[in-house]
Amino acid sequence: MNDWIARDEARVWHGFTQMASYATNRPVIVERAEGHYLIDVEGNRYLDAISSLWVTTLGHRVTELDAAVVDQLGKVAHSTLLGNGNRVVIELAEALTPLVPVDDPRFLFASDGAAAVEQALKIAFQYWTNQGISTRTSYLAFGGAYHGDTIGSLSVGSGGFGTDVFDPLRFPVMRAPRFDDPEAFVVAAKLIRDRADELAAVVVEPLVQGAAGIVTAPAEEFAVLGEACADTGVLLICDEVATGFGRTGTLFASEQCGLQPDLMAIGKGISGGYLPLSATVASGDVAARFLGDDLSATTLYHGHSYQGNALAAAVALKHLELIAEWDVLVNVRARSEELRSMLAERIEPLSAVKEIRLQGLMCGVELHPGDKRGRKVCAAALDCGVLLRPLGDVVVLMPHLTVGTEHLEIIVDALETSILEVAP
Amino acid sequence: MNDWIARDEARVWHGFTQMASYATNRPVIVERAEGHYLIDVEGNRYLDAISSLWVTTLGHRVTELDAAVVDQLGKVAHSTLLGNGNRVVIELAEALTPLVPVDDPRFLFASDGAAAVEQALKIAFQYWTNQGISTRTSYLAFGGAYHGDTIGSLSVGSGGFGTDVFDPLRFPVMRAPRFDDPEAFVVAAKLIRDRADELAAVVVEPLVQGAAGIVTAPAEEFAVLGEACADTGVLLICDEVATGFGRTGTLFASEQCGLQPDLMAIGKGISGGYLPLSATVASGDVAARFLGDDLSATTLYHGHSYQGNALAAAVALKHLELIAEWDVLVNVRARSEELRSMLAERIEPLSAVKEIRLQGLMCGVELHPGDKRGRKVCAAALDCGVLLRPLGDVVVLMPHLTVGTEHLEIIVDALETSILEVAP
Repeated sequence: MNDWIARDEARVWHGFTQMASYATNRPVIVERAEGHYLIDVEGNRYLDAISSLWVTTLGHRVTELDAAVVDQLGKVAHSTLLGNGNRVVIELAEALTPLVPVDDPRFLFASDGAAAVEQALKIAFQYWTNQGISTRTSYLAFGGAYHGDTIGSLSVGSGGFGTDVFDPLRFPVMRAPRFDDPEAFVVAAKLIRDRADELAAVVVEPLVQGAAGIVTAPAEEFAVLGEACADTGVLLICDEVATGFGRTGTLFASEQCGLQPDLMAIGKGISGGYLPLSATVASGDVAARFLGDDLSATTLYHGHSYQGNALAAAVALKHLELIAEWDVLVNVRARSEELRSMLAERIEPLSAVKEIRLQGLMCGVELHPGDKRGRKVCAAALDCGVLLRPLGDVVVLMPHLTVGTEHLEIIVDALETSILEVAP
Repeated sequence: MNDWIARDEARVWHGFTQMASYATNRPVIVERAEGHYLIDVEGNRYLDAISSLWVTTLGHRVTELDAAVVDQLGKVAHSTLLGNGNRVVIELAEALTPLVPVDDPRFLFASDGAAAVEQALKIAFQYWTNQGISTRTSYLAFGGAYHGDTIGSLSVGSGGFGTDVFDPLRFPVMRAPRFDDPEAFVVAAKLIRDRADELAAVVVEPLVQGAAGIVTAPAEEFAVLGEACADTGVLLICDEVATGFGRTGTLFASEQCGLQPDLMAIGKGISGGYLPLSATVASGDVAARFLGDDLSATTLYHGHSYQGNALAAAVALKHLELIAEWDVLVNVRARSEELRSMLAERIEPLSAVKEIRLQGLMCGVELHPGDKRGRKVCAAALDCGVLLRPLGDVVVLMPHLTVGTEHLEIIVDALETSILEVAP
């Protein structure tokens, strides 16, 4: 064990990590990066095939993004958005406006996806109480859903990862089946119609349930959700924290699903993976229900100190420009098709592989259950110079959106070698 | 109304802000900054007397902090901490270790203070369930408390700002009186002793209840809390998000209170006010209860994608060095005494002033209730070139920790002029 791992283990508590096993699970201690590669404290290079937990979009150390941070440093790093404004934040909101699938959008910024979800839940709740309706206090969410780890976002999550230990702290919600149940959306739509007068909102990860293990559903199945919401007034919250900013092949997955949410949570890729930034996007109609007298009870009394951080906003603004300039979505779709072929040819036939699920450059390779197989395959992939991270028995492939064919080949090579090594 | 305000109002939803009144409440649209001054889009300069909502410590555009960000940009902006490490994060945790009043500390990083509190609440909860104790599911918190806006942190908050509208989503907690009740700590200690077997933890803002309106309590009153926790095993969570990093005259307010928390939430000033960063600090004893088999149920399954962001960690690391090099705490204490004298001489005698509360460079000037007087005084201060923000009838003074006497004079001049203008 190198010294850095011991120092890390002694002081840093890593999320979603059993610290008793941390040091022996071959952690990579990153010191720097170049493009698609992370470089550890000993100079070893690893292809970043998890996009630093699904946040990196264009790669690491992007000259233009670095320059945007430096340029903003020359102006101001941060100024509060509570009752005041910041120019670059306005520019970011305006740049996002024509791109989000939300009508007449308003942007309430935060730093984490979980906070963006919490804000959406609270806005949906108060949307009704501001109208004098106090009975619409529940939410509909899906089995397998993951929306973040704070108590509100955890409440609409399905309690995976053993988080049902926190049940006494979670508020109850209505639950539709997981996306891989063919009846999931029909059941959800029926629940919405039958119990609309109890429901503030339905919350859904469009197209892909990420943390469930990249569980996908056909885009056309989501239409009934949108229709049920439109007919009943139940607000539609799309959680695009994982799927947004090109990950699934369109800028937002809602577009493919034909959904126009009343509220949308965005995060992760919004800053290109550089800085903590997220936002709750609310339609103009939703925001209008919060207008009233100054200091009145219709106001949304919610706001984090670092809401609309200027450095994060500056990098997010430049990131939007680069997505367009570099035709990133075209690359995602082309590389996704290549990856699909490579996986069909070389990974799907392996006896250890149960199912492969791919949407854009968001991929789950599910292994037949075995003794920590996901973990072991990812450890083996490190020897091939590829950094992966499993979700249980699912090996997640989440390459940067700007990878080339040669990077996909390296990833698939490593995956094949690793699976054969662990489960020959 | 200038064009930037109209553009801002159209697209940005500001936290804790009634958007129908936003444009007419004289928002400052910040474009850049210099030292203690914010400069708006029209070139007007305002002394930042709210530290961009209590986060800025050393001022804006600090050469050394800017350089730290640029240096880290040349390495890597972000890499995931889930199961992996990052060198600068390890260095930051090690630098914090001797400074925090927590025994054998471990650092679980996040981006917002609310998330740091949520993590502390969840760790305290699971600390008991990991020991097979399922009855310690409640928390004790104080009247007037504010711990953040996500549902968990809002649950331990006292429901101020009209947030009791969210009661159906909040979990119930035990409530001790507000700090300004002379019995607050005696009642709290008795509740801890009487109901220890129901309590996972007590959560407290040491020394100052910030968002309640800078409500202070004598440091020596906190001792009974620590004793009751030590005697009963109830975990002590100190929320130092607002008070930490020198704001009250010591690096952490817990030091003055003689408290050694089991869990501490830190944020705001941790990055000098540059970037979203927070952390939950857990004692080694608390962390030890989460050790177990890999992937087992004793693991804390919680972690935000931007946990331990490298750019934020780099600036936080340099910030700690500067606090020491520049003798910032000495300045806070000296300027605090000066501010106390100035306020006693010039503000306290004003008929509109009800009470002045000061701790370090955290100050509340409470006005006798009047028609939005807090709001009006802060608007008038803008004409004097000073940016303030009220909490109801309390005008909050929160200057940078590195201000000089001349800046305090400007702030007190503006305050005096503004109060006399609004309530002659």
